[in-house]
Formats: sequence, C-alpha cells, structure tokens
Amino acid sequence: MIKTDILIIGAGPTGLFTVFEAGLLKLKTHLIDALPQPGGQCSEIYPKKPIYDIPGFPEILAGELVDNLMEQIKPFNPGFTLGERAETIEKLEDDTFLVTTNKGTQHNAPVVAIAGGLGSFEPRKPPIPNIADFEDKGVAYIIRDPEVYRDKRVVIAGGGDSALDWSIFLADVASEVTLVHRRNEFRGALDSVERVAELSKLGKVNLITEAEVKELKGDDHITAVGIKHKTKGEIVLDTDYFIPLFGLSPKLGPIGDWGLEIEKNAIKVDNSYDYQTNIPGIYAIGDVNTYKGKLKLILSGFHEAAIMCQSAYQRIFPDKKYVMKYTTVGGVEGFDGTKKEAKKEVVKAIN
Amino acid sequence: MIKTDILIIGAGPTGLFTVFEAGLLKLKTHLIDALPQPGGQCSEIYPKKPIYDIPGFPEILAGELVDNLMEQIKPFNPGFTLGERAETIEKLEDDTFLVTTNKGTQHNAPVVAIAGGLGSFEPRKPPIPNIADFEDKGVAYIIRDPEVYRDKRVVIAGGGDSALDWSIFLADVASEVTLVHRRNEFRGALDSVERVAELSKLGKVNLITEAEVKELKGDDHITAVGIKHKTKGEIVLDTDYFIPLFGLSPKLGPIGDWGLEIEKNAIKVDNSYDYQTNIPGIYAIGDVNTYKGKLKLILSGFHEAAIMCQSAYQRIFPDKKYVMKYTTVGGVEGFDGTKKEAKKEVVKAIN
Repeated sequence: MIKTDILIIGAGPTGLFTVFEAGLLKLKTHLIDALPQPGGQCSEIYPKKPIYDIPGFPEILAGELVDNLMEQIKPFNPGFTLGERAETIEKLEDDTFLVTTNKGTQHNAPVVAIAGGLGSFEPRKPPIPNIADFEDKGVAYIIRDPEVYRDKRVVIAGGGDSALDWSIFLADVASEVTLVHRRNEFRGALDSVERVAELSKLGKVNLITEAEVKELKGDDHITAVGIKHKTKGEIVLDTDYFIPLFGLSPKLGPIGDWGLEIEKNAIKVDNSYDYQTNIPGIYAIGDVNTYKGKLKLILSGFHEAAIMCQSAYQRIFPDKKYVMKYTTVGGVEGFDGTKKEAKKEVVKAIN
Repeated sequence: MIKTDILIIGAGPTGLFTVFEAGLLKLKTHLIDALPQPGGQCSEIYPKKPIYDIPGFPEILAGELVDNLMEQIKPFNPGFTLGERAETIEKLEDDTFLVTTNKGTQHNAPVVAIAGGLGSFEPRKPPIPNIADFEDKGVAYIIRDPEVYRDKRVVIAGGGDSALDWSIFLADVASEVTLVHRRNEFRGALDSVERVAELSKLGKVNLITEAEVKELKGDDHITAVGIKHKTKGEIVLDTDYFIPLFGLSPKLGPIGDWGLEIEKNAIKVDNSYDYQTNIPGIYAIGDVNTYKGKLKLILSGFHEAAIMCQSAYQRIFPDKKYVMKYTTVGGVEGFDGTKKEAKKEVVKAIN
C-alpha cells in the first residue's frame, strides 16, 4: 500500500505543480495517472503545440512546460502510479482515503486532490464487432513502447497527426507498415503529410485510402485485418498488429461515481475558500472543477493548487500554524536534501 | 485625457499580465505606476533575486520575469504613466472613472483594476528637520537617472545593497562619492561589500562609518551636509547631492481614501466570483487585495487578473457573449497587427 500526505489524481500541469506547493509545506505527494507518462494532455495530445498564455512565457511548447514542471518539482521527489486509472475511493475509519486503481494498486492518504483535467482520455474505438476480444492481443489504441513493433507487420488506421506520425516513425522499426484511411485527404502538420506521401512512393509505407478496417481475424492473437475498399471491395491483409489512432476523448470516468457533486461534467468546489468538494478532504483543482466564473486555463489550476495545499495542511496538521515564507526569502528545501536559495546577504565590516 | 478600456493601477507582474488577459479579449489597457519603470517590487526591490515558485520556472530572477512579461504583453501595446501616483478617483455621469495622478495626468476608463501590490513604495526618510525643503534641490531618495550626478559631488547614506551598489556605480560617474553609514558593518551581497572596501582603499569612495548625516545646508540648492561622527564629532562636507538610501516601505497611499472596503491594509474583494471591490467597476487583484484564504503570491495575481478581465468584458460589453478560445488553438492577435499562432494543420490529399 502506497502512503502519502496528498494523493493527487492526474499528473497534468496542475497535478504536477501541486507537488511543488505541497513540498513547500513539507507535505509528501503521490500522483496517479491513466496515461503512461506525466503531463496529461500537454504530453499526450499536444506536446509540440505552443501555448501563449502561461504567465512569463511569451511562448512555450506544451511538452516544454511539462519538462519544466518536472524539473521544478524534482526536489520534492513525488511518487507516480502511471498507466493506471483511479477506480474506487473508500473512506477509512481513521478519516483517511483508500484509492484503488483499475490494476488493484492501493493508495492511502488523508487528503485527495483530484486534478483530473477533462477526465481520462479514452481512445475512440472503431466500430468493429470483435475488437474488444483482440485488445492486448495485437490491437492497441495508444503506442506505449514502439519497440514492441520491431520487425513486425503493423496496420495503422486514421487520418490525423497520430496516424501520420506513427506511420513515419514505425516505417523504420516495423517490417511492414500499412496506413488505412477512409479518405484521400489527411489532416495534420504539412511536414508529416508530405513525409508520408514520400514514404508511400518509396514503398516504405503501404498506403490504402478510401478504405476502412471492418474485420479482425485470428485466434489467440490477431493474424489479419479485413479492409473494405471503396472501389476494390474487400482486401484481406495479414498483420501482427492493428493500431487504430482515431484520437482520444475525455471522460470523467469512475471519479463520476465517487459521490462528488457534479455540474456540467465537472466537480463542484468551494472557490470562495479552498477548492474543496462536498466531501471534506477531497479537493478538485484545474480543469476538472467548476464554480462561478471558472476559467479552464492552466494558470487557474496553478493558483487553485497553491490555495488547496494550504487547506490540506490545516486538515493534516490541525494544531500547527503555517507561516508562509516567500521562496525568494526562504529558498526551497528539497526532500532529497537539496537546497535552492538566493545568495545570502552578508553583514561585514569594512573599516 | 488618456482613455482606455481597463485602467490598471500598478505595473508589477499582476498589472502587466492583466494587459495580456485583457488583450485576448480585445480590451485596451493603460498602466499607472509611481515607480519610474514597470515591474513593481520585482524591478525596484529585488531584480537580481531568484524566485522559485513561478509555475514552470524552476528558478527565475525577478527582473527576468518582468522582462518576459513585457515581451508577452508587447503585442497589446499598453500605455504607461510612470513615475506618477494615482491620487484621486471620480465616477463620471457616464459611469466611467476619472483617475488623476499627483502630477495632474488624467485617465478615463469604464473599468479600473487596482494591482497596487503592497502599495506605493515610499522611501524611508532620515529624520533631518529640513530635509523636505531640499527635495528635488539636491536631495533624492531614488536614483532615477545616474547621469544627473556626472562630475558632481555626491553623499550617499545607508548600509544596505542600494547604498553599496550606487556607491560602486557612481564612483565612475560622480567627481566625488562619500558613503556615510552609522555602523562599521554593511549588510549586502558579499561582492558589493568587498568592492566598496576596495574602492575605499583606492580613494574612489570616501567612506565615513559610525556617522550620520544630521543637517543639510544651502539656500536654493544643497551645498553641504553636517555629519555627526561617533568619535570625531561634527564634520561638514561640501556636496552637490545628498542621497539617503534607507529602503522603501509600502504604503497603500491615496487609494486608501477611495471609499473601498479595506481590511488588514488591503482591499476586500469578492473572490467567489470576479475580484470586484465594493465599488462596481473597480477590481483589486494581486497582493493589494484580501479575501478568505488569500495567498500573496505572484501566481495568485495572474489568476485573479484572468478572471477579473472576463468580468470587465461583461461590464464593458453587457450584450456581447465572449467565447473563450485557447491560445493554443486561436493564437494571439496583437493590436500591433502581429499574430502568433500554432502551425496550422493542413488537409491534404496523398493519393
């Protein structure tokens, strides 16, 4: 069982910055995220897109922001349960919470901070009747480790950036890459579209357009896909893997069943004080929460995290009074023994 | 008369970022600040100190943060009234506000955002009876333009960083620099203390310690100071300028008399919605405001600015509905004709 002070659900920018604010209060943190890496949407959906409204950054790529936040929180050495979705929550007799993931990992903390963004990003699945039977048996909706596909035959479906980028990448890894898309037109970065066209001419990507994968064949593992082509009819293609990349859509998911007050698919919180939900000890910060005037901006989550941590501190140490020190004055003392601080002034005689 | 949409009082980080958030809503802004340059405390008090709790920056110098914010708001081309203090406010018949500075500059806007930080930083003045008579006649508490002192005789008083740094700087500018301090010990960056000791040995800074300036002489302009030395008694020193650098202390100042609800030397606002004060159309954001759970952090001001601008928009355009667009999607359209945006996806046929 993993024990911590603040259990943070969601490792996007808000969840990550919560580690920092908690760390300044000497509170330990652990993050759970369904995605295989920290950063939330910024890493998974738009790592290469510039953001212009993070204060102090005239322009920053979403992926860079995540890297910076990871660097900023490093002294506070947070724990991570990645690639698992927080599934159930239970209040224990000692007033702490037990959160269990879909893979059975258990976490215990006196405070839970839900920083779940727009929810878990669930892959959009194509309507192929037996697709669920082949999940983890040759069908994948997210590419976690490209090495899995080395020297294998891969069929990718989709017409957006993910489908294009992975086709390009796997062209050098897999023994055979087929890209199936129901239109002739692809929607993505110009570079990527042109590169796929080039790879197709070179025979390194087998391009089948105006076609859709309609059938999966195999017993223990996928062995072939049935493709319906607009003019050529049915094509059967032997393959080791089928990877439909039709984007991710956010779902509040199991958190929706935790007894929290939900409004507009988001968790209602008390923004007049500490962003606590209707269940004392459970807070909701960042895009996952709602209140009058809420702005779903990354900078909102940062502020909500800072305020929420102060309230969490009071909950964990009801008898202690925390006196805030500015980092410019007090520095940052890491849990790893590091200390960052401004150069100290000296008092020194001259004469 | 200067006219704008949102008149921002205070050009610290919160005031500056308000320009950006207003700009995204196509609202024009103008800033008033008593200091001669933008950045507030970050520029005036601790430009070289690192801040560790700005989200996304593991470490940033206060001065760099200001530079970055100035760069970020550049497309929205804000106006500045610097070196003047907002003195009076008047509500006009058309429901807009008229704000006049201590130098008589008039500003008119439908919305006023007070981002005054801890207040105007007023210099701490030494208790010399006739010092007020010599202000602007040889006595200065802030060095605005060092060139004023070229080839002149200057007496600086103080024992901290400002006194040390300006003594070092003016040693190459003024014809004669005297540094008077009531103790032998100086409190400042080690480099600065050592450099002053060196300049003193070289005869480039005339150091008089365990002494205080007690008297100012002159008619239209200062001509000499009377110094009381601990052991040597009175010393009279001819000089062209006397610059006591005893630090700045924040005062809420004239804003305190604007009829705003004040609590703990700060302006009470409605944090459950839009950070508006008790006077509709006047908002208070950043360190100048107070509410339950308030944290006087720079990141708080950023969030308060973003929310406040949405409310200001409703006040200015009661009939329009603003639909928020993420900068990652919609880019940033400057008032100067510039446009920053993410590389667009293309839709392009391959086959």
